[in-house]
Amino acid sequence: MLISKLGEFGLIERFKKHIRLDSSVIRGPGDDCAVINFSKDKYLLFTCDMIVEGVDFRPQEDPYLIGRKAVAVCISDIAACAGTPRYCLISLGMSRNKTTAFADKISKGMRDIARNFKVNLVGGDLSAARKTVIDVSMIGLVSKKRLVLRSGAGVGDIIFVTGALGGSILGKHLKFTPRVKEAQFLTKKFKISSMIDISDGLIQDLGHILSLSNKGAVIYEKLIPVSPKARNTKDALYSGEDFELLFTMSQQQARKLIDSGMRNFKPIGEITSKEYGLSLIGINGRKKDILDKGFKHF
Amino acid sequence: MLISKLGEFGLIERFKKHIRLDSSVIRGPGDDCAVINFSKDKYLLFTCDMIVEGVDFRPQEDPYLIGRKAVAVCISDIAACAGTPRYCLISLGMSRNKTTAFADKISKGMRDIARNFKVNLVGGDLSAARKTVIDVSMIGLVSKKRLVLRSGAGVGDIIFVTGALGGSILGKHLKFTPRVKEAQFLTKKFKISSMIDISDGLIQDLGHILSLSNKGAVIYEKLIPVSPKARNTKDALYSGEDFELLFTMSQQQARKLIDSGMRNFKPIGEITSKEYGLSLIGINGRKKDILDKGFKHF
Repeated sequence: MLISKLGEFGLIERFKKHIRLDSSVIRGPGDDCAVINFSKDKYLLFTCDMIVEGVDFRPQEDPYLIGRKAVAVCISDIAACAGTPRYCLISLGMSRNKTTAFADKISKGMRDIARNFKVNLVGGDLSAARKTVIDVSMIGLVSKKRLVLRSGAGVGDIIFVTGALGGSILGKHLKFTPRVKEAQFLTKKFKISSMIDISDGLIQDLGHILSLSNKGAVIYEKLIPVSPKARNTKDALYSGEDFELLFTMSQQQARKLIDSGMRNFKPIGEITSKEYGLSLIGINGRKKDILDKGFKHF
Repeated sequence: MLISKLGEFGLIERFKKHIRLDSSVIRGPGDDCAVINFSKDKYLLFTCDMIVEGVDFRPQEDPYLIGRKAVAVCISDIAACAGTPRYCLISLGMSRNKTTAFADKISKGMRDIARNFKVNLVGGDLSAARKTVIDVSMIGLVSKKRLVLRSGAGVGDIIFVTGALGGSILGKHLKFTPRVKEAQFLTKKFKISSMIDISDGLIQDLGHILSLSNKGAVIYEKLIPVSPKARNTKDALYSGEDFELLFTMSQQQARKLIDSGMRNFKPIGEITSKEYGLSLIGINGRKKDILDKGFKHF
């Protein structure tokens, strides 16, 4: 059987099946970061993201932005667990025929975003490769009482997003700001029950929260904040690479957040029990079909 | 200018130049692992290695051994700092046209070596890619008083290797055993002044110790343990992927190690002051030229 038939998530399940972990691992594969017991009051977060020329960026893209994106996606994973990004390693494969100017720009893009987020760029590995490929691995820290996973959504919780969705492929995916500050603000002032960063599209990433939380959800098309760059609401629901945060909190906490007047957190729906599955209510108040359209590698 | 003209190590220097690190980073880029202040008595070690189809392994190679190697090279980096490997992430890029059998074998190779060395495989990232590419990042721990870096070699120190060198490309590079036990034995019983794992060839990797320690060295051709797989001593001196440890210790410690009767640690020469550079003394007792022949990606 070809892996394209099994699909990305089928393949991940297959990889996970036989893995054994010791008791220091609080959360292994399946969340935005792995979570490791670190000290009395902190967990270590550990994550990696690979970006490949022709898949995650076009060859003609500005190398500065490619380097920036490679590091930003990992910072976004740490944000999704409400952590502080701290240390990163860069593995870079590229062709011998690239110029030093190309390498300098990639490297400056990485350094600039790392510096902005106070991430230490502590090392890496260089390799020859036909197509440019960058894998960044990152260590973050999170105080134990602030850790948020994908698995904590409860029935009745309100679902929020941090910003407008869709159309990211036109540029935002290379320039987005990882939502570290927002996640830290939220976990400092409120109780967040689950969180994920939207990399594969709202519907698909909400699906990850629902499957790990063993819940269903109703979301309302009219509440989805659609980016001016998006062609339509479908883009906002299904297109990937937004890197906004999707999170849930109890109704009481949600009211407190809404009452606080902060306008960058938009409620889009509610968690239900599992048997309702995921429903999308259209502008006309009727249920709309959910498409199987989020980004998949295979 | 093309990066091939600047060369791998020139490019690394260029990347390192503008990096700023905070005081929690004991050692940034340039050693086998980054070293991070972790707790009162331990450092965290952080390393990554990317292997690429057509560069580090041939497409027709057994995928089980490819997966095994990807994880083993990181374990070897942790060994070179005398640490214990603990957690790893795998980024895997591969073509949609690969079979699930191929993916299963890669994954089993990774799991088996991880389990042998008690490494927790805590997550990863899957991506579509034209050529198979695997990047492994690993966290290890080392007690502060046992950390060994490349930079500690002293004048008069004896240079050792842990096993026979050369000919690895014929098979050992896919099946080697990372020298974790040896490094831990050595740092428990003896004082090691510097250490590196031989991935780019004995001469080139000894060069890394010398440049970071600001020293020179004399090594003796007749003392180099040449693997039966090697065609000649040149192979043992210059060919990469041996993944044996190269380390230095004071003459007093060296005598103690030699007297202990353990035959898997072979003395091959001595550290000198920097102005002598690196000399190779041939079988006939005369100085031989050092070739610039170790493995370089660019």
